[in-house]
Amino acid sequence: MFQDFSAPSDSVSDNSRLTAVRNLMEEQSIDFLIVPHADEQRNEYQPACSRRLAWLSGFTGSAGAAIISADRAVLFVDGRYTLQAANQVGTAEWEIDSLVENPPHLWLGKNAGDSSTIGIDPWLHTSNEVDRLTKAAHEVQASLKPMANNAIDAVWQDRPPAPLEPTRIHPVEFAGRSTREKMAQMDEALARAKADMTVLTDPSSVSWLFNIRGNDVAHTPVTLAHAILIRDQEPLLFIDKRKLDMETHAFLNQVATLAPSSELEERLADLSAGRTFLLDPDLAPHAMGEIIRDNGGEIVNGNDPARLPRAIKNETEINGSRNAHRRDGAAVTTFLHWLDQQEPGTIDEISAAARLEKTRADMAGNMPLKDVSFDTISGSGPNGAIVHYRVDETTNRVLQNGELYLVDSGAQHDDGTTDITRTVAIGDVGTDERRAFTLVLRGHIAIAAARFPKGTRGMDLDPSARMPLWQHGMDYAHGTGHGVGSYLSVHEGPQSISRRGTHELHAGMIVSNEPGYYRSGAFGIRIENLVLVHDATDISGGDQQMLGFETLTLAPIDSRLIDPTMLNDDELHWLNAYHGWVRREISPLVDDEVRNWLHKATEPMIRDLPPASA
Amino acid sequence: MFQDFSAPSDSVSDNSRLTAVRNLMEEQSIDFLIVPHADEQRNEYQPACSRRLAWLSGFTGSAGAAIISADRAVLFVDGRYTLQAANQVGTAEWEIDSLVENPPHLWLGKNAGDSSTIGIDPWLHTSNEVDRLTKAAHEVQASLKPMANNAIDAVWQDRPPAPLEPTRIHPVEFAGRSTREKMAQMDEALARAKADMTVLTDPSSVSWLFNIRGNDVAHTPVTLAHAILIRDQEPLLFIDKRKLDMETHAFLNQVATLAPSSELEERLADLSAGRTFLLDPDLAPHAMGEIIRDNGGEIVNGNDPARLPRAIKNETEINGSRNAHRRDGAAVTTFLHWLDQQEPGTIDEISAAARLEKTRADMAGNMPLKDVSFDTISGSGPNGAIVHYRVDETTNRVLQNGELYLVDSGAQHDDGTTDITRTVAIGDVGTDERRAFTLVLRGHIAIAAARFPKGTRGMDLDPSARMPLWQHGMDYAHGTGHGVGSYLSVHEGPQSISRRGTHELHAGMIVSNEPGYYRSGAFGIRIENLVLVHDATDISGGDQQMLGFETLTLAPIDSRLIDPTMLNDDELHWLNAYHGWVRREISPLVDDEVRNWLHKATEPMIRDLPPASA
Repeated sequence: MFQDFSAPSDSVSDNSRLTAVRNLMEEQSIDFLIVPHADEQRNEYQPACSRRLAWLSGFTGSAGAAIISADRAVLFVDGRYTLQAANQVGTAEWEIDSLVENPPHLWLGKNAGDSSTIGIDPWLHTSNEVDRLTKAAHEVQASLKPMANNAIDAVWQDRPPAPLEPTRIHPVEFAGRSTREKMAQMDEALARAKADMTVLTDPSSVSWLFNIRGNDVAHTPVTLAHAILIRDQEPLLFIDKRKLDMETHAFLNQVATLAPSSELEERLADLSAGRTFLLDPDLAPHAMGEIIRDNGGEIVNGNDPARLPRAIKNETEINGSRNAHRRDGAAVTTFLHWLDQQEPGTIDEISAAARLEKTRADMAGNMPLKDVSFDTISGSGPNGAIVHYRVDETTNRVLQNGELYLVDSGAQHDDGTTDITRTVAIGDVGTDERRAFTLVLRGHIAIAAARFPKGTRGMDLDPSARMPLWQHGMDYAHGTGHGVGSYLSVHEGPQSISRRGTHELHAGMIVSNEPGYYRSGAFGIRIENLVLVHDATDISGGDQQMLGFETLTLAPIDSRLIDPTMLNDDELHWLNAYHGWVRREISPLVDDEVRNWLHKATEPMIRDLPPASA
Repeated sequence: MFQDFSAPSDSVSDNSRLTAVRNLMEEQSIDFLIVPHADEQRNEYQPACSRRLAWLSGFTGSAGAAIISADRAVLFVDGRYTLQAANQVGTAEWEIDSLVENPPHLWLGKNAGDSSTIGIDPWLHTSNEVDRLTKAAHEVQASLKPMANNAIDAVWQDRPPAPLEPTRIHPVEFAGRSTREKMAQMDEALARAKADMTVLTDPSSVSWLFNIRGNDVAHTPVTLAHAILIRDQEPLLFIDKRKLDMETHAFLNQVATLAPSSELEERLADLSAGRTFLLDPDLAPHAMGEIIRDNGGEIVNGNDPARLPRAIKNETEINGSRNAHRRDGAAVTTFLHWLDQQEPGTIDEISAAARLEKTRADMAGNMPLKDVSFDTISGSGPNGAIVHYRVDETTNRVLQNGELYLVDSGAQHDDGTTDITRTVAIGDVGTDERRAFTLVLRGHIAIAAARFPKGTRGMDLDPSARMPLWQHGMDYAHGTGHGVGSYLSVHEGPQSISRRGTHELHAGMIVSNEPGYYRSGAFGIRIENLVLVHDATDISGGDQQMLGFETLTLAPIDSRLIDPTMLNDDELHWLNAYHGWVRREISPLVDDEVRNWLHKATEPMIRDLPPASA
């Protein structure tokens, strides 16, 4: 099993850790210490040694920060974690504040007094973050003090060591392009930025560029490493050699100079004088820019040069993704059939999630399931309304008749990353749920069937997924879609379909299409397929160069939840065409019983048409 | 007649004006002189004395700039004016360049040599523009020289005097709110900006705040004036007193200290020391900021404080607009009936536009037509494909059988400003035109029927107007809608429905809804109604606070151009409901013959429904 459904252990039960930190703060004359959730490489899933905020506060959510002073301990979390944070913090001393409305830099502006000293670890904050903090400190005559050593690490007894999972070669039959070819793109990006070098700090970028993968963190198959890219020269790859077997070592040695991770700072300092470095101000640690500047180098701000080439999948990756989605679709369909056979009231959220993971593993064939791509969201009834719900033993619910069950899950295969959400009726479900489901489906279809000119950004498409809901005064409080990697992170930039999706969509990008609707305390609905941006000029006709989406995900959408009289002709046509395609693709991959069920589940829907207005 | 359809007189036929300007440049050691289209108050329609670019070059378009050097004369225009500019410039010496791809500041970066001097009139450029020019000059070691006197004015023989049309009171029965009430909003805006004062330089802002109107420029009923607003004190209004009769003088004297326009600089200088001024960097002349700084004042950049309150119409203005639209709809409907009676091949673009203007004037009743709100766009066949077409004697075409005729026009009434586009079939029109028209109509309906949560920006809605066209690889190269004033400018910010529409929509704003499609050399289609943003929470149901649009414009949409089988149920329902409303509202306002025609023109459309997919 790649997932652990046990409740988080209540490991922080007194103030001893806070006390140890405060003692250290006093020694170093620090009045306020910022402890962010982020680690040095901004990993979405963090290695155990990086979970400093959780160690200190007990809070295990995926975003947050703490500020510690001699007499206060404040934990900042966003709305989805307010309750969880209150439950998890060790003692009553912790205050909970809003990461969105009153983030640390604003809090400090109000609470840090004259000439107080605010301690930070400059490796855990990006340069953009430090700019904000510096400004906030400046406004109250406080000063920001980058600390030489991380204050938590200094007092963390038994801190786990950095992970040393083996680095694996990601063969070109899946990657589609060699490191040398990708390096040429990096050189072009450096030339455009008028930079001599860049540091890749995002493990996804390093793993993508060098065609390697690993298991250092959960669910995202990266190997933790850094790279310094030097224009038109061999790059430096900083990686713990204990992770490399002879073959992988030889493979990497052909395209890079290998160095231990511990030498990154020193080598960076040696290379800096007179050189211009491209650094991503939203990724690179502040400390890195300081090292470069202190040693006579210059910084130009710009995006991680691997970000866009990584997002635009090549033909091999695209075909790999189609294969992974067929395999995944067969497993999800088999799971949905199984679920349909269970009597309401007999299974719970954990057993369903475990069954889905096991089905994926059992049906992987010669392309073994490498991991789930994130912790399965398995929520029934009111739990489905919690957008980022993660079931554990304390929250586990039995799936009851008349409820909706929402399951959002994904897989990591060598040939691709998947991410799919289906919302399923458990027994007989009310008309309210059916109406909301059909509105969400209309939004899903609006994206799936959209065509749009080159230059269109994700933000331009996001509202069309909401408009059917908006007509009825409904909405959902998350983006419509995120980028997805190729056997990499299931959340990948720069593209997204959301209000913040300012990046233009390019053919070859993969994004999710996942509108939803959540009625707090009652039910949650989400319908998610992954889609590939493709050229749609020829199928559109007309005089413009157009793009569109090819849906990748293959699994039936629960027709018991669809009111066909609410769909217009085009929408009904899309639904029936999608189900026809799912049936054709998945039928050969599942057993007879599942196939018979699938045929029923994908039957074309019809409706009695209302008379035309007259 | 408020419009002049004669061809622009070819008044610039030799280089004598260029020569005079170059002599002056030599005297003052200016190497490059920038002559922008804009005037001191950034009027969309300029008084004759401000048309410096036209006087110098012959070019009469609504946007552009020139750069003059000893041996070059370059005119910068955008794509819609490339041909017109080439036709209008006086001599072969003029080069035409792109205002969009190679605007003056970029051109100077390439062409201004070391230590050359670039002359500008600091009253004709905003501070944002001067920042761009300064940066460009700096990069090539050139220097920008703000000139004490405008170089064109110095050599312009017989330059017309500033207009002195009477200033009129805009009564509170139309304005809805007194100057004192509006001043309270201004004081709040100054407090928010932490400013002591502001200068209103936009004549629309001054006219709105003081509830006055005028005829100093064509089509926009402002009176030209400036104001200095002082927080919690009486404002200073700079206006030529010759424009004020006793009543208007007394009216203004109650709420402002009046001063001659010629004293603006001096009074501003006197007020500056130790004071903070809110200035709009996209509106205020660079010279104004310099005066304030030179006299010890400070500047904070921010929006003209009248912009947003002016855009959000009060109940009186909203009801006025509804009345103006009923009156306008009756006139447009009467015109459309007349047009329908004419044999194809018997009328031309000018006679049609003149007839429409006369119909508006004749049917105005007790609320006389004050002006058209812009020069009517009256384009048949290929002329309809020119988005900003303005007919004159040289371009005039007869409306022929089988063509589309596009007419975009508007009126200025005391109670509101209108703007409507209808595209009409002249005789029998082909299926291509009908298909394109129906797609444009679907986009129009998408906006008209949209509901959206508070916080939605115009840019969020713009794509939904395009999506029906996008499905067929078609698009249009203009925004979907612009803000409209209340008996003020027909193009009013900050709101718009366009890719640049970053401002959120508020209840009370009026915007146009005008998607289109243009096939160069063949035909143009646009369907435009004005819509009012209103609260749609109650009619939406659901759990969110919603906004929506109330359509204001009343005139039939040519059903001969609609293919009802391309509309879905909701769209067909909208169309029939709209036509039903037009029939009910307009029937009582037109004569029997027009009424009979209107009944036919607004008959509900039906379609033979295609069989449901099975």
